[in-house]
Amino acid sequence: MKRRGLLLVVCGPSGVGKGTICKALADKNAEIFLSVSVTTRKPRNAEVDGVSYHFKTEEEFKEMIRHDELFEWAVYCNNYYGTPKKYIMEMLQRGQDVVLEIDVQGALKVKEHFSEGVFIFVLPPSMEELKKRIEGRGTETKESIVERLKRAGQELKLTDAFQYIIVNDELDHSVKTLEAIIIAEKCRSERNQEIIKGVLENDISVH
Amino acid sequence: MKRRGLLLVVCGPSGVGKGTICKALADKNAEIFLSVSVTTRKPRNAEVDGVSYHFKTEEEFKEMIRHDELFEWAVYCNNYYGTPKKYIMEMLQRGQDVVLEIDVQGALKVKEHFSEGVFIFVLPPSMEELKKRIEGRGTETKESIVERLKRAGQELKLTDAFQYIIVNDELDHSVKTLEAIIIAEKCRSERNQEIIKGVLENDISVH
Repeated sequence: MKRRGLLLVVCGPSGVGKGTICKALADKNAEIFLSVSVTTRKPRNAEVDGVSYHFKTEEEFKEMIRHDELFEWAVYCNNYYGTPKKYIMEMLQRGQDVVLEIDVQGALKVKEHFSEGVFIFVLPPSMEELKKRIEGRGTETKESIVERLKRAGQELKLTDAFQYIIVNDELDHSVKTLEAIIIAEKCRSERNQEIIKGVLENDISVH
Repeated sequence: MKRRGLLLVVCGPSGVGKGTICKALADKNAEIFLSVSVTTRKPRNAEVDGVSYHFKTEEEFKEMIRHDELFEWAVYCNNYYGTPKKYIMEMLQRGQDVVLEIDVQGALKVKEHFSEGVFIFVLPPSMEELKKRIEGRGTETKESIVERLKRAGQELKLTDAFQYIIVNDELDHSVKTLEAIIIAEKCRSERNQEIIKGVLENDISVH
């Protein structure tokens, strides 16, 4: 029997760098599948359809909602964001690990369906640093920055729902930590009951 | 405030190789402190007092019990084994990580006192392989081998009490897994409440 894959849900406030961490993780580990979200927001410079996001019109997005093709979806800063259900389920069944980069509310919704997932919250070293990172993007208006920071403060109060905290101080360190979490989680007792059973069934001392 | 160290309790049936894993881990990571047990059993070839074990006479051991100097102790195959309390407590308070290699019953006793410890069960790839490893030592009598295997079968039924399972197939892989568990455990939410609080207290968006 093929072992079910691990669903890693990586979340954290906007601008914390969770996308960069997940991308670096997938670049380093060919066997890790990065889930691609669906959104109605406009592509930023260099973002490619089907890689960064599946970019959809609002009408197309609403069609996906109607056909129950999304795992979860939400509206954020007037744009729709959603997680396509089908690919993730197929990958997990094949024993493939999937990393899902998502916002906090989305992560909490995924948790309702996949409590066996691994839920990781990426924290900024400080709120000052978070502000700098959002400003550094150069793509946000002043109002959008204020809104994102306010929201970040609220989201940080929801970390209790997450098993792990990664302080994203240095990219390489964050990626290595994520890799360690994957290795460790695969060793959790609850994920290894079949292996224990297998060794016990061949217990030569009792035959 | 200095963060309290991590207590890693590595356990598994006799002969599974838990001692070799822990020693290799400490050799590779100078900052990891290996707890040294106290025993009344005779030293095997090349075992050094104070390194492999603190070797004591039965009278000395009983004196330690009377003075409450042991964290836990047990009799196994007519020998006393115990865990000295003082060093472990001091190291943890200093923020030092401590690895404690111990038998299953000892681990369960430690868990009663340190539920915040990390409890790891080392599994043999199979019972056949475990038998080979015990025989390979060349230090056990036929009766002792039978007794150890029977006990191993019973111990494998107690893995529920442990958070992690490592199948000790290949030493280097087991050591790397243990290192990953240490990194991952340091990121567990419950161990990082102070950090979250720190970022929240400096939430610039609410001032």
